[in-house]
Amino acid sequence: MSLDHAATKPHERLAAALAVEMDAVNVLIRDRMASEHAPRIPEVTAHLVEAGGKRLRPMLTLAAAKLCGYDGPYHVHLAATVEFIHTATLLHDDVVDESAQRRGRPTANLLWDNTSSVLVGDYLFARSFQLMTETGSLDVLRILSNASATIAEGEVLQLTAASDLATTEEIYLQVVRGKTAALFSAAMEVGGVIAGRDEATVKALFDYGDALGVGFQIVDDLLDYAGTDAIGKNIGDDFRERKLTLPVIKAIALADADERVFWDRTIAKGRQDDGDLETALELLVKHGTLEATKLEALAWMEKAKAALAPLPDHPVKPMLLDLADYVVARVK
Amino acid sequence: MSLDHAATKPHERLAAALAVEMDAVNVLIRDRMASEHAPRIPEVTAHLVEAGGKRLRPMLTLAAAKLCGYDGPYHVHLAATVEFIHTATLLHDDVVDESAQRRGRPTANLLWDNTSSVLVGDYLFARSFQLMTETGSLDVLRILSNASATIAEGEVLQLTAASDLATTEEIYLQVVRGKTAALFSAAMEVGGVIAGRDEATVKALFDYGDALGVGFQIVDDLLDYAGTDAIGKNIGDDFRERKLTLPVIKAIALADADERVFWDRTIAKGRQDDGDLETALELLVKHGTLEATKLEALAWMEKAKAALAPLPDHPVKPMLLDLADYVVARVK
Repeated sequence: MSLDHAATKPHERLAAALAVEMDAVNVLIRDRMASEHAPRIPEVTAHLVEAGGKRLRPMLTLAAAKLCGYDGPYHVHLAATVEFIHTATLLHDDVVDESAQRRGRPTANLLWDNTSSVLVGDYLFARSFQLMTETGSLDVLRILSNASATIAEGEVLQLTAASDLATTEEIYLQVVRGKTAALFSAAMEVGGVIAGRDEATVKALFDYGDALGVGFQIVDDLLDYAGTDAIGKNIGDDFRERKLTLPVIKAIALADADERVFWDRTIAKGRQDDGDLETALELLVKHGTLEATKLEALAWMEKAKAALAPLPDHPVKPMLLDLADYVVARVK
Repeated sequence: MSLDHAATKPHERLAAALAVEMDAVNVLIRDRMASEHAPRIPEVTAHLVEAGGKRLRPMLTLAAAKLCGYDGPYHVHLAATVEFIHTATLLHDDVVDESAQRRGRPTANLLWDNTSSVLVGDYLFARSFQLMTETGSLDVLRILSNASATIAEGEVLQLTAASDLATTEEIYLQVVRGKTAALFSAAMEVGGVIAGRDEATVKALFDYGDALGVGFQIVDDLLDYAGTDAIGKNIGDDFRERKLTLPVIKAIALADADERVFWDRTIAKGRQDDGDLETALELLVKHGTLEATKLEALAWMEKAKAALAPLPDHPVKPMLLDLADYVVARVK
């Protein structure tokens, strides 16, 4: 889920344009992460919050607010809220996935334990609700509590859908909307809502975030097969965890009888041997599903950019357009 | 945490007085627990929500609202909110404690898995924020988001304090305030706030809930040593999990050198043999700490009752007073 290691970095231009606000967000995050009574909390969160995450989600909120001409103080609260929700989700995902790496560093539950990951995630989640309550906007609370429910639903759906060869692209899209796009779209939406903009503008911001989020997750899942370890993900993690993602769902749809036996053994039954990952990669290449997945991600990015088109010109606008291109450009 | 198996049951009189509202709460809980996209969610929660929990916390909210003459619809939302927060906490506790029983039935993470417990807990937590947002009261949102942060802090503090023989009664009280009293007091408080009552009334409701919650948890911890298996808890669970609670903290403060060696081995180092639980119980009896703990619980209940004294007479008031007595009466 990181945007590291690329030649051109639109998110850095965005970060530069939002530098003052991002500093304020970082101060607020550090302040609210602290706990008088439970010093372990910042210990557990620090490595996640400091570990070079690109703060993509809070930047979306700041960018949306700026684009809408907002000049109050609460976009900073909302940006910190969104980052707290994201970090809480990562902590709880660590319990779920037992993935060995997150952002290129050991996950919290290897450094500490499942228990700390769960409870500190709960703390950040509660803190995020305190922050959004401080904005005094019930619309914001409605949007972000809805997004939180959608995120959890998406994660549970992923749990039941994973390893089930009958998982369709439609179900995959539902999972992706929940686990990633819901927070991207809400992050954009609240930036417009706090600025008091009309429904059409807020809808455009939502649509951009939704399409960017879906495309972002598709690219992330693609990189799990087509990326390099340098990105900070282990190639084949999803395969080893028997998680059905778009490249494999497409390959299963095109599989012959022998290939179905292979997918059934490795994903559905989880009996994996040496060389199975290589075989899986060969099948993805054979059926052209890596390329097809990339084309799908590109289509989502066009959708994201189109959503912004009706909005008035603003220096931040081309940066958001570039950001959409950049997400897919991570694929080699 | 149940109020089962007693001869007189004030919570049942309270439930009878609030029967119409509690029915509405149950309907709302079932409705909001459902998930169109993730049918596993009600599967995981049903056994917790239906398992004969006495709905003590939502009853407190309904009782407080009734006591304050509230005649709007939102006390039902708030009661469901409070029960969802409680249920989410139980689900996440199951990941934490690996306790074999909860309310006399297998815990969710034995029936399902850690992953489901975490994610479904998150879902209920998000649902609770949706419900409270629907009330449109920012005061309510502030109180319940603060309570949620305090709960998580208390759980993390318990994690770091547990098994540490230096844990004082003061730290224990902080843990108990977080893990139990914070939700009791918030449950009462929001009942008064939604009814639009003055600060002094809301403070009295808070104080009752706080003292009731502290006393309730002290009794719960006492029953872990002085109860019977019929209550649905395993005697000695806290000892086996090396969780320092009030009876043991008091016994350690009075321990001679040999006894300190015993507590150090069994609790701090966690090396427990057959017969150690019996030895621990003998030490609690020898130093009179079970009796001292019960007296402390009684003092909290007097505090709870005193807090309600300034409030005007209402049929619900004596039921809340009886409830405080009943909590301690669970101890044989």
